[in-house]
Amino acid sequence: MNNGKISIRNVKLKDIALKTGFTINTVSRALNDKNDISEATKRVINQAADEMGYIRDSIASYMRTGTTKTLAVILGDISNLHFSIWIKEIESCALRFQYSTFVLNTDENPESEKRAILTALSKKVDGILICPQQENPDNIRYLKESGVPFVSIGRRFPQEACSYCIINDEKGGYLAARHLLTMGHRSVLMINASPFISSAYERGAGYRRALDSCGLAYDRRLELHIGAAGQGECAQKLRKAIKEGPFFSAIFAFSDYIAFQAIYALNEMGRSVPRDISIVGFDNIQAHALMSAPLDTITHVNETVPYRAVEILMDMIENKDVDNYRTSVIDVRLKKRGSVLPFKSAVDHK
Amino acid sequence: MNNGKISIRNVKLKDIALKTGFTINTVSRALNDKNDISEATKRVINQAADEMGYIRDSIASYMRTGTTKTLAVILGDISNLHFSIWIKEIESCALRFQYSTFVLNTDENPESEKRAILTALSKKVDGILICPQQENPDNIRYLKESGVPFVSIGRRFPQEACSYCIINDEKGGYLAARHLLTMGHRSVLMINASPFISSAYERGAGYRRALDSCGLAYDRRLELHIGAAGQGECAQKLRKAIKEGPFFSAIFAFSDYIAFQAIYALNEMGRSVPRDISIVGFDNIQAHALMSAPLDTITHVNETVPYRAVEILMDMIENKDVDNYRTSVIDVRLKKRGSVLPFKSAVDHK
Repeated sequence: MNNGKISIRNVKLKDIALKTGFTINTVSRALNDKNDISEATKRVINQAADEMGYIRDSIASYMRTGTTKTLAVILGDISNLHFSIWIKEIESCALRFQYSTFVLNTDENPESEKRAILTALSKKVDGILICPQQENPDNIRYLKESGVPFVSIGRRFPQEACSYCIINDEKGGYLAARHLLTMGHRSVLMINASPFISSAYERGAGYRRALDSCGLAYDRRLELHIGAAGQGECAQKLRKAIKEGPFFSAIFAFSDYIAFQAIYALNEMGRSVPRDISIVGFDNIQAHALMSAPLDTITHVNETVPYRAVEILMDMIENKDVDNYRTSVIDVRLKKRGSVLPFKSAVDHK
Repeated sequence: MNNGKISIRNVKLKDIALKTGFTINTVSRALNDKNDISEATKRVINQAADEMGYIRDSIASYMRTGTTKTLAVILGDISNLHFSIWIKEIESCALRFQYSTFVLNTDENPESEKRAILTALSKKVDGILICPQQENPDNIRYLKESGVPFVSIGRRFPQEACSYCIINDEKGGYLAARHLLTMGHRSVLMINASPFISSAYERGAGYRRALDSCGLAYDRRLELHIGAAGQGECAQKLRKAIKEGPFFSAIFAFSDYIAFQAIYALNEMGRSVPRDISIVGFDNIQAHALMSAPLDTITHVNETVPYRAVEILMDMIENKDVDNYRTSVIDVRLKKRGSVLPFKSAVDHK
């Protein structure tokens, strides 16, 4: 890769030792963040190393230590804003532990997920964060057999024990639907993800609990399921639901991402949010990007899923303990922005 | 990492040889994609390897070949939808060449960018795609000295020769502004990014050329600049512009991402798009995610920047040629969705 040019890679440990006055051994141990070197010394040596353009050789370091200081993040779709916000948070949390991260897409496809896992293992990552496709748990079983520390994020397999970190999806579903019911809406359409995804199943359960708490019966025609197939599906199913009934005055969307697609489709049908239809999403994407329309949503309380998941993974890696599973369920709350109007006003506007 | 468990990593080349009937040497050469092995044989061996759970050892492979089959992607903010769409495309293009990708954030900060470059080099990546911060070209110079193949994506340094792949920003700026002018708007606010970013500078030049082509003078009070500081800035500057004048009936936003923030802020001020104000963005994010409101925008013709950039980088890597710079400027066109109304109608609706 060096092509005979004068390379900036020529800075050696002994150059840093000469410059800082420490021994080569101290410089080496400082750069590898060993416990017997003081923080002050590490700071001086790391700063000199950076100024001199010293490049750590992660492969030589792996040969010496058996660790690559690298995590893999395996998830459905990097370009889904919800996931890309996660990735950014994971990356910055991992950096605090001096780990870098590696992202792999699965497109929610078991075969791609298997390939992603093989790639991660071939790169000798120290740990994996995975938001698993849930068509089947085969890949999660495979990961368990591999012995590499991993945490399932955002989803869990009820029948397959492993470490996981999720948000309280059931409570979130309850709060979202309850919010709409409290505003007088009696017919709430849920646009859900595929029911075999744990977060979709649990948000759906929360939605049903909210209906039940108001003495309303669950009508399965008022729960749509959108796959990972693409964004045309949401518009198509929503159009069909509006055309074929039953009537609904409000929507609870599985995610903000789906809510935005629903708003787009409603606009195309000449219906306006919240004037004609109220809507609540999930994930609070607008904490990071104020997309077009204000959206009521469900958000975490205190810690986020990525933040807590990295902590769990680091605990597993640093204590070399993959056999005791850690689980964490992040609490949620409702965040209002203005996409919900009382049912009466909705009628007034018609 | 194996913790004494029975590991799935125990599948060896000789196991695959036994299963497929090929020699260990053939298996090894097939798995390493050597030219002297037929595609049919490679398929059989790769399939068997996958089925048996064989994990390629990328570090052993690096020791043997000097390549890691890994690219780094270094850019401002993974959670910016424009960039996350890029990353997904880069990842899938790179996969076709059997490369995996590594993403690093810079937050548009020179120091973070330097750290990201050092991390990429320490991981022995075979090449780098970088959307550089442009406060200064120091890191690009550093990269050039390193001798590692790299391509600047989406931005270029006029005074610092290197391989780059950009979209035709000047033409895009011209088409966007021209679209608004053709619809009768005479006062068009441009919400631009920082002027030291080449794409912002060039889109601004296109905007001025469009004004000029209609015999309109450029009014610098009608060009705002938004930094990478966060999304509050757009709302704040837009509010100030509306309050302090001069009047404008349309907006050309540097990016769809900024356009969405502007629409959000306009909504908060009780102004509706396109009824009260028309708007054009840039990047065609809605080709990937239909966010809330339809948005007129500028998009590529044929090839995308990530696609072409990966091709350029692969050419540099495979021909071991970093000294002959490749440059590519992707053509653009206007994509209409309905966020622009004729100036008269805008007045009619008031």
